[in-house]
Amino acid sequence: MEGKEEDVRLGANKYSERQPLGTSAQSKDYKEPPPAPLFEPGELQSWSFWRAGIAEFMATFLFLYITVLTVMGVKRSPNMCASVIQGPSWAFGGMIFALVYCTAGISGGHINPAVTFGLLLARKLSLTRAVFYMVMQCLGAICGAGVVKGFQPTPYDVLGGGANKVNHGYSKGDGLGAEIVGTFVLVYTVFSATDAKRSARDSHVPILAPLPIEFAVFLVHLATIPITGTGINPARSLGAAIIYNKERSWNDHWIFWVGPFIGAALAAVYHQIVIRAIPFKSKG
Amino acid sequence: MEGKEEDVRLGANKYSERQPLGTSAQSKDYKEPPPAPLFEPGELQSWSFWRAGIAEFMATFLFLYITVLTVMGVKRSPNMCASVIQGPSWAFGGMIFALVYCTAGISGGHINPAVTFGLLLARKLSLTRAVFYMVMQCLGAICGAGVVKGFQPTPYDVLGGGANKVNHGYSKGDGLGAEIVGTFVLVYTVFSATDAKRSARDSHVPILAPLPIEFAVFLVHLATIPITGTGINPARSLGAAIIYNKERSWNDHWIFWVGPFIGAALAAVYHQIVIRAIPFKSKG
Amino acid sequence: MEGKEEDVRLGANKYSERQPLGTSAQSKDYKEPPPAPLFEPGELQSWSFWRAGIAEFMATFLFLYITVLTVMGVKRSPNMCASVIQGPSWAFGGMIFALVYCTAGISGGHINPAVTFGLLLARKLSLTRAVFYMVMQCLGAICGAGVVKGFQPTPYDVLGGGANKVNHGYSKGDGLGAEIVGTFVLVYTVFSATDAKRSARDSHVPILAPLPIEFAVFLVHLATIPITGTGINPARSLGAAIIYNKERSWNDHWIFWVGPFIGAALAAVYHQIVIRAIPFKSKG
Amino acid sequence: MEGKEEDVRLGANKYSERQPLGTSAQSKDYKEPPPAPLFEPGELQSWSFWRAGIAEFMATFLFLYITVLTVMGVKRSPNMCASVIQGPSWAFGGMIFALVYCTAGISGGHINPAVTFGLLLARKLSLTRAVFYMVMQCLGAICGAGVVKGFQPTPYDVLGGGANKVNHGYSKGDGLGAEIVGTFVLVYTVFSATDAKRSARDSHVPILAPLPIEFAVFLVHLATIPITGTGINPARSLGAAIIYNKERSWNDHWIFWVGPFIGAALAAVYHQIVIRAIPFKSKG
Repeated sequence: MEGKEEDVRLGANKYSERQPLGTSAQSKDYKEPPPAPLFEPGELQSWSFWRAGIAEFMATFLFLYITVLTVMGVKRSPNMCASVIQGPSWAFGGMIFALVYCTAGISGGHINPAVTFGLLLARKLSLTRAVFYMVMQCLGAICGAGVVKGFQPTPYDVLGGGANKVNHGYSKGDGLGAEIVGTFVLVYTVFSATDAKRSARDSHVPILAPLPIEFAVFLVHLATIPITGTGINPARSLGAAIIYNKERSWNDHWIFWVGPFIGAALAAVYHQIVIRAIPFKSKG
Repeated sequence: MEGKEEDVRLGANKYSERQPLGTSAQSKDYKEPPPAPLFEPGELQSWSFWRAGIAEFMATFLFLYITVLTVMGVKRSPNMCASVIQGPSWAFGGMIFALVYCTAGISGGHINPAVTFGLLLARKLSLTRAVFYMVMQCLGAICGAGVVKGFQPTPYDVLGGGANKVNHGYSKGDGLGAEIVGTFVLVYTVFSATDAKRSARDSHVPILAPLPIEFAVFLVHLATIPITGTGINPARSLGAAIIYNKERSWNDHWIFWVGPFIGAALAAVYHQIVIRAIPFKSKG
Repeated sequence: MEGKEEDVRLGANKYSERQPLGTSAQSKDYKEPPPAPLFEPGELQSWSFWRAGIAEFMATFLFLYITVLTVMGVKRSPNMCASVIQGPSWAFGGMIFALVYCTAGISGGHINPAVTFGLLLARKLSLTRAVFYMVMQCLGAICGAGVVKGFQPTPYDVLGGGANKVNHGYSKGDGLGAEIVGTFVLVYTVFSATDAKRSARDSHVPILAPLPIEFAVFLVHLATIPITGTGINPARSLGAAIIYNKERSWNDHWIFWVGPFIGAALAAVYHQIVIRAIPFKSKG
Repeated sequence: MEGKEEDVRLGANKYSERQPLGTSAQSKDYKEPPPAPLFEPGELQSWSFWRAGIAEFMATFLFLYITVLTVMGVKRSPNMCASVIQGPSWAFGGMIFALVYCTAGISGGHINPAVTFGLLLARKLSLTRAVFYMVMQCLGAICGAGVVKGFQPTPYDVLGGGANKVNHGYSKGDGLGAEIVGTFVLVYTVFSATDAKRSARDSHVPILAPLPIEFAVFLVHLATIPITGTGINPARSLGAAIIYNKERSWNDHWIFWVGPFIGAALAAVYHQIVIRAIPFKSKG
């Protein structure tokens, strides 16, 4: 089995000369870091821990502020045409790019409890940190949506407040499925973009990682805005639901937590087991 | 002939100081890897071979899921305006970016039998692997389109299901021509973006390669959606045709296999003979 | 307190193995440069100082020329649909990308008095240079808008000349708030994108920095064009107001100076104190 | 004068620590290459010379094919809305990105006689090569537009064939001015993006250069399509005019040669004299 192990460890790069698009992500003599402990006591005493939470709060705040404002503006325009999908898609995708780029060095730039959950399952951060991030993300999202409502309370309520719900013509199962696959696309991209970086000796890989992540967010919105308005981010859904606070925004709300968390878990499993083959390596 | 040979080997870089945009792709002391064998027995025993097929399946599945869903959403909007072209173009192009970025390190990130065919002609991968990839791509595409139909079977049938056909006002020859030139643009870009990488000592080149490939896909869609809905990917055309499964989606179906394969072959020839001058080098 | 100091200095990188998206911006043994003096006498004798001012003038001139022309074109189209927001947003964001990319090596590529002000507060350039930049930016903006008016004086006046004002349905407080948060997004992105570069040994970081800055500008426009037409750049607002020169463009004009300067100051404080923790370091 | 010379040579980098966005393009111990000779006899015997011409032909062919087809598709859509500007702008800009990326290593990736002219003035290539490129670019453009007409001759004629003319409501002077400033933006970006590369030891700079160039092309189209349809590329204008071949496409045709050439010359002068200060250096 020695040879098989070798292959698992070397991954696609055994034939890399003939696979012209390979990123060489799996090739280096790369040591998997040990899994993060569930609780890391020293963490709570470090400024970098709290700063990371503040950065997650600020990023999610700005994320909701910009995107919900864009959704409102598009809905108010007299002649909406298909840009009602394209405009918000750019807002969500582009904002993720700018914010991940800016926040990655401080907190990892999750800005999304589903991403934090996926990385927790892969043991990339401690449970303490994961819970702290999720709380800060939700607080940031509530504040961001609140500022948008502050500008114009009445139009905000009339136009739906950017809250997610399963749209007319789709069942709850459709909505749940769309959220699962959509979050899978996002978290799978996060793992892939991130994985390449870790082995690399190059500082520019993490600087480029926000780009595929942006496109993943942009495209999932392009595809599923007609179905659910696209959640794939429980903090974003929660923030809009709390500020909008109408019955119809709460009826389907569980979908925007269960769907993203299932999608993130599937992506973590797919990446760790199929792509990285981590369980098989430890047998070596 | 010594000097002529030298020139062929050095390529454009002889005058590189005066050609300010040169990528220096041809300049390094770069050894062409030997052509891939048609059959490589050991391949079938390696996990990386099967994993690559799974990755192609998954990527093509997600590709069809996102793009067909976007096409459906745009077609259902009451006031379609010209975004009926722009929205799907972004979906196809952007999805290729994210997926090639994520999958390149695992399987090369083809996600398209025409790309696999072009790279096979240039002897970048074995025949076994090429056939395996194509089968997995077609399976992934069928599943992706199937999930979209699963959401809303009736609208799917009414709105055309994202299936390719030669549109009213164009002959079959027009459609075939559009597919040939479109796939030429795509595969030529794949070769160019890829070629630069191979000589480079830099790991970031393959990370950037998805960007021009994305634009190639985006632009061919922008240009030829009015003619054929834009195939340039036989797996994408097959998946949509099988799930849609109406007579009109089968009548023209051969065009979306013959066209892309001719285009890919022309691009392989153009790149290997005109750009890389490989046949002339071996005479040296 | 030694350990705490250490943590402040190392920032997020203490746990960097587990934070997969980190940019490693804070990690290197990086010496903060001394703050710029308020007046640097030798500066006025150097060609690079004057050249930088010329470059700022030229960049702001081209910025206004392209963006105001785009706004005019979109407003004149018979059927505006939601692209009335998307088109100009791309123009403002994309032009910032190209101009920052081109001008960064000459003057730093501010093209915006609010950016210059934020960097002045962080002591990145001297007061002399900051004032000189702002003057040149305003002159460039006036000329750029003037050329657009020169093409078609009557339509220019009818269509509003790209001048910023608080739109119907919003209070002056809304407009001021939108300008503050919008400029915060922009200047925060400038600081983050820039910070990564400074520690880096890699010349490509500044080459990528224009990308997140572009997205910040694009997205703030997407979000706040319906509120104020989006200033976040006092030179752009001043240039359009002077050339348009109607009473209504002057009534709200103070908002487009006060808002951006407050937003830039908040971003400078947030970055220097929360993210970089500079005051705490000097205590060590 | 020694100190002044020093400053000219060091450029903006004297204060680089305080200018956070500097590209360090001017900083290295960089030796200006000698100007290209007007005639270089050996050139005509090299395969790389002819190959570069073929690559320019092919790139301009594909450029016209994609962009004119997009213009046709947008014009035929029933409800054009403002996307009539945005769609073609993406096509022109994005195609330039993909083609410059692919062709830069072979021929420099000009795809535009105005760019070739600007680089000739800066003595980056020989006169022989410049004339050869321009001829191949014009031939490629004619073939590309011809293929589009081949698809549907009647609609092509009805919809204007993508030919440039000064639109109703603008004088010829407006059109000439728009072409001059537009080409200035493009060629200034080419020089800047290119300049950064030359001093750099990094192979990735030329790989990123197509990005700002793309945005320059995209934005000039966004701004000036309503005025002239946007030429800024005499080969593109000539190709469309010859295939369309109606009187009105020839009346204004001189504007699309004179304007771009003046704009390119101004950009070359601005870059060589103001930005690079080349004349002052030779006095040292």
